[in-house]
Amino acid sequence: MQFIEPELVNSVKKLSDDLLPVIEYHFGWKTIKGVAVPKDTGKRLRPALAVLSSEAVGGDPESAIPGAVAVEMIHNFSLIHDDIIDGDKERRHRPSAWTAFTIEDALIAGDALHTLAFQVLLEKDTPERVQAARRLVDATTTMISGQASDMTFDDLPTVSFEECLKMEAAKTGALLGYASSVGAVLSGANKDTCSSLEVFGYELGLAYQAVDDVLGIWGDPKVTGKPAGNDLRERKKSMPVSIVLSANSPESEKLLDIFNIAGDLNDEEVSHASSLIENAGGRKATLEEADKHLKRAIEFLNIADIRKETFCELEEIANFVVNRQS
Amino acid sequence: MQFIEPELVNSVKKLSDDLLPVIEYHFGWKTIKGVAVPKDTGKRLRPALAVLSSEAVGGDPESAIPGAVAVEMIHNFSLIHDDIIDGDKERRHRPSAWTAFTIEDALIAGDALHTLAFQVLLEKDTPERVQAARRLVDATTTMISGQASDMTFDDLPTVSFEECLKMEAAKTGALLGYASSVGAVLSGANKDTCSSLEVFGYELGLAYQAVDDVLGIWGDPKVTGKPAGNDLRERKKSMPVSIVLSANSPESEKLLDIFNIAGDLNDEEVSHASSLIENAGGRKATLEEADKHLKRAIEFLNIADIRKETFCELEEIANFVVNRQS
Repeated sequence: MQFIEPELVNSVKKLSDDLLPVIEYHFGWKTIKGVAVPKDTGKRLRPALAVLSSEAVGGDPESAIPGAVAVEMIHNFSLIHDDIIDGDKERRHRPSAWTAFTIEDALIAGDALHTLAFQVLLEKDTPERVQAARRLVDATTTMISGQASDMTFDDLPTVSFEECLKMEAAKTGALLGYASSVGAVLSGANKDTCSSLEVFGYELGLAYQAVDDVLGIWGDPKVTGKPAGNDLRERKKSMPVSIVLSANSPESEKLLDIFNIAGDLNDEEVSHASSLIENAGGRKATLEEADKHLKRAIEFLNIADIRKETFCELEEIANFVVNRQS
Repeated sequence: MQFIEPELVNSVKKLSDDLLPVIEYHFGWKTIKGVAVPKDTGKRLRPALAVLSSEAVGGDPESAIPGAVAVEMIHNFSLIHDDIIDGDKERRHRPSAWTAFTIEDALIAGDALHTLAFQVLLEKDTPERVQAARRLVDATTTMISGQASDMTFDDLPTVSFEECLKMEAAKTGALLGYASSVGAVLSGANKDTCSSLEVFGYELGLAYQAVDDVLGIWGDPKVTGKPAGNDLRERKKSMPVSIVLSANSPESEKLLDIFNIAGDLNDEEVSHASSLIENAGGRKATLEEADKHLKRAIEFLNIADIRKETFCELEEIANFVVNRQS
């Protein structure tokens, strides 16, 4: 998706000079001091899905660009704000935006990206663009409600697996569903095809999130760019945690005891919690969940009336997502 | 504009339960604990302008509702986020949203309102709605760039009056220009009329902001709901301050000396700065600026091809804005 990056750069440049430094830093294009970095800039999974969803229906990949750019902007506005909310000091092996700059700077930069996403789509008012914008506001609202629900979980002693799944479907599934169908929408594909591609992305999002939750506990910090056991230290009610907490087993009690310790958890407590969850089957069950949703994703890809070549590329991305290490 | 409030309440109710408490509190409908307050809920200046701009062109006031609701949502999302950014602990005689809840809760609630505004407009995809949405993304981007510019001013020793005016035009003028024309846009009025109404609102916004800047220094805390000399304590480069700072007079030096004092300014220093600015003519010049922009606003209202009755109502609002005490 190398041709999306310059489009993203150009769209962002429309913002005022006061906002650019934080955003260009966050996207990995510049250092804190504003020096250009010719380097890896993350996976750009959503733009890739957006462009492929256009190719899938025989559309011109060019027509997918505004959708690809817009969805990446919404994703990144949410990353910038979520890092503030979660107090995450690192992202992609670098200080997160609010750490590198200030909370205030990161907040307003996120706001600017948020509006810019809709502006990119509505720059032209063709029916396809309008449709793509309407779907993006819906997906963004769902994503934000998922994040809010995740925050509410922090104040609850335990959440059920179903509640966790619902939250993650909103937080991650909605926007991946959007990304996986927006190119088809912009190419004027029929409703059924757009819907099938959307469900493919939605299910892929749940698989993605399950893997994310496993990496958030057992991921290698050198690869993930986040501290070891990060999600446990933040007491996140992610899938593996919710599975164990809601099992009413001796392990549920023990895990609850650790989560109830006042103040920050130390390395030993984090490591103890991680072993507990693993022994209680939380890791295995979450990885099985990832596989289940990956299978469902591929089923919907099979149903969708799309080009075979693109089917293979989308399938490959889906498999990559579930087998990734960061 | 009493019929707008229930519409606003209903639109907000679409958000998830996790987000509602902060938003219902912020809008003045509920207490922190969620108890309903049947009370004054602020001026709702923007919805009033939106509805009048529809009546002005002989449109059905009903058609203005999505625009009125959307612009009030954007305005309030920006208030919630700006209070975090500026560290303002009070708004409308009550703790601000982040003070009553948490920074995290206020941040995500603002994000939700931000998207919801566009969702309300794009609920239907008529050409008028799409046009109104496109204009709103533009106005919101400008508003955010104005806020970012205001933040940059905090790090500069001095800013010129022109720079200050440009910032305030973006921060306040753009959204008031939008509010004053969106009803006409939604009623399908011609471009020239929409533009004249927009400039009316833009100029009114500058008059509004000039008065706001005066109240931010010399306003009565009992009436404004903000601490006395609030803007000086925060060292805001507002109009009266920028006029004096950039005058190269003995007062400029003295004011700069106060602004350069390390740490929080005490009451005496704030009061000293306020006298300095008044004696150097900063207050008078700002009020003259308000009058100048009010006059320009009325000129554009005269140019606009609108109903005479509505002209009078809009003129009355404009006069009220410049003569208000809070």
